[in-house]
Amino acid sequence: MSDYAAPLDDIRFTLVDFLDLDGLTKLAPYGEADAESVMGVLEEFGRLMAEVWAPTNAVGDTDGSHLEAGQVVTPEGFKAAYQAYADAGWGAVAFEPEYGGGGFPWVVGIAQQEMLNSANMALAMAPLLTHGAIDALVHHGSEEQREVYLKKMVAGEWTGSMNLTEPDAGSDVGALRTRAVRQDDGSYRITGAKIYITFGDHDLTDNIVHLVLARTPDAPAGTKGISCFIVPKFLVSDDGTLGARNDVKVISLEHKMGIRASPTCALSFGDEGEGAVGHLIGEENAGMRYMFTMMNNARLGVGVEGLGLAERSYQQALAYAKDRKQGFAPGAARGEKSLIVEHPDVRRSLLTMRSLTEAMRALCFTAAVQIDRAQHADVETDRTAAQEMLDLLIPLAKSWCTDEAERVTSIGIQVHGGMGYIEETGAAQHYRDAKITQIYEGTNGIQAMDLVGRKMPMRGGAVFADQIARMRATVGELDDAGDELVAIRDELARAVDAAEAAGQWLMTEGQADPVVALSVATPFQRLLSLTVAGWLMARQALLASQRLAAGDGDADFLAQKVVTARFFARNVLPEVHGLVGPATSGSDDLLAANF
Amino acid sequence: MSDYAAPLDDIRFTLVDFLDLDGLTKLAPYGEADAESVMGVLEEFGRLMAEVWAPTNAVGDTDGSHLEAGQVVTPEGFKAAYQAYADAGWGAVAFEPEYGGGGFPWVVGIAQQEMLNSANMALAMAPLLTHGAIDALVHHGSEEQREVYLKKMVAGEWTGSMNLTEPDAGSDVGALRTRAVRQDDGSYRITGAKIYITFGDHDLTDNIVHLVLARTPDAPAGTKGISCFIVPKFLVSDDGTLGARNDVKVISLEHKMGIRASPTCALSFGDEGEGAVGHLIGEENAGMRYMFTMMNNARLGVGVEGLGLAERSYQQALAYAKDRKQGFAPGAARGEKSLIVEHPDVRRSLLTMRSLTEAMRALCFTAAVQIDRAQHADVETDRTAAQEMLDLLIPLAKSWCTDEAERVTSIGIQVHGGMGYIEETGAAQHYRDAKITQIYEGTNGIQAMDLVGRKMPMRGGAVFADQIARMRATVGELDDAGDELVAIRDELARAVDAAEAAGQWLMTEGQADPVVALSVATPFQRLLSLTVAGWLMARQALLASQRLAAGDGDADFLAQKVVTARFFARNVLPEVHGLVGPATSGSDDLLAANF
Repeated sequence: MSDYAAPLDDIRFTLVDFLDLDGLTKLAPYGEADAESVMGVLEEFGRLMAEVWAPTNAVGDTDGSHLEAGQVVTPEGFKAAYQAYADAGWGAVAFEPEYGGGGFPWVVGIAQQEMLNSANMALAMAPLLTHGAIDALVHHGSEEQREVYLKKMVAGEWTGSMNLTEPDAGSDVGALRTRAVRQDDGSYRITGAKIYITFGDHDLTDNIVHLVLARTPDAPAGTKGISCFIVPKFLVSDDGTLGARNDVKVISLEHKMGIRASPTCALSFGDEGEGAVGHLIGEENAGMRYMFTMMNNARLGVGVEGLGLAERSYQQALAYAKDRKQGFAPGAARGEKSLIVEHPDVRRSLLTMRSLTEAMRALCFTAAVQIDRAQHADVETDRTAAQEMLDLLIPLAKSWCTDEAERVTSIGIQVHGGMGYIEETGAAQHYRDAKITQIYEGTNGIQAMDLVGRKMPMRGGAVFADQIARMRATVGELDDAGDELVAIRDELARAVDAAEAAGQWLMTEGQADPVVALSVATPFQRLLSLTVAGWLMARQALLASQRLAAGDGDADFLAQKVVTARFFARNVLPEVHGLVGPATSGSDDLLAANF
Repeated sequence: MSDYAAPLDDIRFTLVDFLDLDGLTKLAPYGEADAESVMGVLEEFGRLMAEVWAPTNAVGDTDGSHLEAGQVVTPEGFKAAYQAYADAGWGAVAFEPEYGGGGFPWVVGIAQQEMLNSANMALAMAPLLTHGAIDALVHHGSEEQREVYLKKMVAGEWTGSMNLTEPDAGSDVGALRTRAVRQDDGSYRITGAKIYITFGDHDLTDNIVHLVLARTPDAPAGTKGISCFIVPKFLVSDDGTLGARNDVKVISLEHKMGIRASPTCALSFGDEGEGAVGHLIGEENAGMRYMFTMMNNARLGVGVEGLGLAERSYQQALAYAKDRKQGFAPGAARGEKSLIVEHPDVRRSLLTMRSLTEAMRALCFTAAVQIDRAQHADVETDRTAAQEMLDLLIPLAKSWCTDEAERVTSIGIQVHGGMGYIEETGAAQHYRDAKITQIYEGTNGIQAMDLVGRKMPMRGGAVFADQIARMRATVGELDDAGDELVAIRDELARAVDAAEAAGQWLMTEGQADPVVALSVATPFQRLLSLTVAGWLMARQALLASQRLAAGDGDADFLAQKVVTARFFARNVLPEVHGLVGPATSGSDDLLAANF
């Protein structure tokens, strides 16, 4: 069993110092929240996560959720943990006051998400999927739908679920076949089968608001004929009380490698008669468009899952390395066994975990701030710039943080040696949990296709060029910084050169032949992700070094931030030089292969 | 459930064409075996693995081994599968005829091991651990011990187990505390506790021969005071019949992330009285030396586990990609969904898996041939050269093949999308199984310490220099090859430069400061491993291209070998350029970190 403490030092540094939370909270809708009150909120939230949620993580993995008489029963302790979260209104922090929200910036919600995922990723999926449903209703729901459903979800009284995937339509949502037939009263009757529905049923709340993608009888083929419906588990009367059970059934739960406590349901709609009762959101055939508006949030959320797991895995490995004695490290007193944290190779492992985790945090929080600015920056050009940067960063945050979560949690097992492979140790759970994050919300391969197909061509490549320019500006700032940062400057400069060259190659060759772009998408995505992560770590080091020089802040923390960033620059970032070749290798070998 | 077919084409190419099996079998002890008879044997063996063993893999994972009344019960089908293997004498193929072996080269046994691991790695551990015990007795057992125990083990009638680890002595074997007290009759009484004992108990055979490391009362401290004992589960009478149960008890089984069917036992010796009966192997206090003689074989065996899992994972992912339709690949007919194997990014995934698997095979088989040549080459200088090359390759084969097994099996899940995360699909099992290979027989971090501490300094660095020279010679040979191989030549040349530079840096800076060597050991190990793997793939491409030009062999296979090797050169091998920095980064950042 691993303990967890919210990493408030690095969260504070990243939010308040690095991302200027005070400046952000001065934007129009965030008037209530200054940086100190935000940190007070996060501190209290961290306590709940550490004390109430974290202890439920292992038992959730061991027992899993299961079906009893057609109903999902969650593991012991889940309902109480969820209730403590909902009752305190924690789910509402980053939503608009209009619907009962706390009116805090989205990046504060992202900091909460990190902690939720560290504490118990499987349980965290209940509120996270609810956030997705809230997002859809905020933007596209009718006033009545918001009144009836949205407030309950913001308050955490009901959860939401997202129903996209069908047995024959995984990543290809356009192929879905669930039917929705309009009734005289304006409601619809929904018939069909959905799979992989996270928290598609559970015992945490009285009702569940399923958002369901379906086709009306006369809908166009493909993604242009998809509509989005509210299908509540229990029908809701006009006075808000719960009525009859809707015709939504759990057919089965998946037996998964990880997040075993998160019930992944196969649902059938309308099995018993003329269909489950559904209510159209917005207009017919606009469902995919609505999904796209939620996509950035959802994908960032998955990146944050990677971050949360990496943080927990690091804390556990570190605690073990500081407790376990084995062998003799260089310089150990004769006959005195060393703590394994003294072994250089273990230190490399721990620094790899730490630097990756801090870089993930910097990347996810930076992306989240763009969500806030894209909505609320005072000037339109700022909003546009933020939206562009966000669109570019999303595939990076989703794919890179989840790929690195696999790496960090794998090292987490490795630090434990043979103990890491024993389930009771808890290190293996993080590794098993992490694997799904590379797959859902669009596999990381699909993120790469999005990056090369949609994101790189934005504004004729100028959005990418802007990012390169931002990174070069940091190299310039590092020129004037002290000797301590020389290695960081040099490595960042070389990485930016590599990313720019590969990006230019891609935009020339990939535009000439889309197969080429698709062929190199994955290595290019990783190359650009690492460079952006290295840039953020370099900027954090620069800030820490300035603060240190000014005697402003916790000197130990700031000095260690420089060490961590320098390790990242010298030991993690150089991987980009191994990616230039693959990212410019074209499609010849892929096409020449017979399978 | 995944099907498996032995990859006889690539095994044949690697063994017969690439490694000159015919030449090898002309060495003194292998008179019986020509290449064609070996391939006949492997073909038949592959059939057993595919038809009898492979179908037991999933059920073994689901049900696991368990304890019943103090005895381990293996999953359904295991006993029959083991019996089919033992009855046909398959375990004896690569051992000496003197003890009932088949007299085939060790590399043939390694080809068998690959298939055993592909078919059912958990069950394969019973014969593989037995091979280790056989190895010890062949080299260090008395004539009587060989007569009583060895022949039974070679015949597969009894299995062996290796008892090294204790609760407070994991990688640090010198810290072990199990006691052995000599009796008047020359036997010993063994008392103590061992953990992580693979197949420490089971129901596959009538008896188990435990090899146990222990200390005699007056033994020196540390690794110099360790002796090695035979402790049979059932005592053996002089006439070879089984007598009383020895005092060896299974305390518990570990609950592991993978290889769940392989019973990992905590054993106690001498719980009931004055100790379990043991028989000294060789001399007192020489146990660690004996273990070292087995170490190369054992570590190569773990590398081969990685190879076996990678092959199975690849076959499964490939079959899925050729069956599953999703989305529209470039050039697909309008409205026709594509097989996912048509998507460029999936092709990249599959080629990554295939090229890594073939490179692992080339590396493991090449190392195995050095085991054969080190023992049986006609001339002593050849034997010495083979032993040196083997010693250098072992940490690479163990660490790289197991790290890449993690990568390949992870991609294997990824190719399946969401299905890959569902346990019934079977892709996840390979990933969970693979993780242990990076840990046991010395974690990959310990392999790296062995590489920089023991292997690089061999003959003052000349063994490493010889390997660099061999690789440069291949670059030279590629100069004269056709245009098809230019990319391979260029990439190999650049990689060898990188490996040489990093190796020279290591030998200068690492000799001056051992902490530096230990600090960069892991990235250097990976850098050298990739380069050696790239060299082997380049040589395979060269051979394939020559055969193609001569019209000698299966043209499709040979052409695809060139494609696979070129993909490896352009997309896998360039990672080395990202490793030069870390491999020459020194120890500063590691020492500056506070944990």
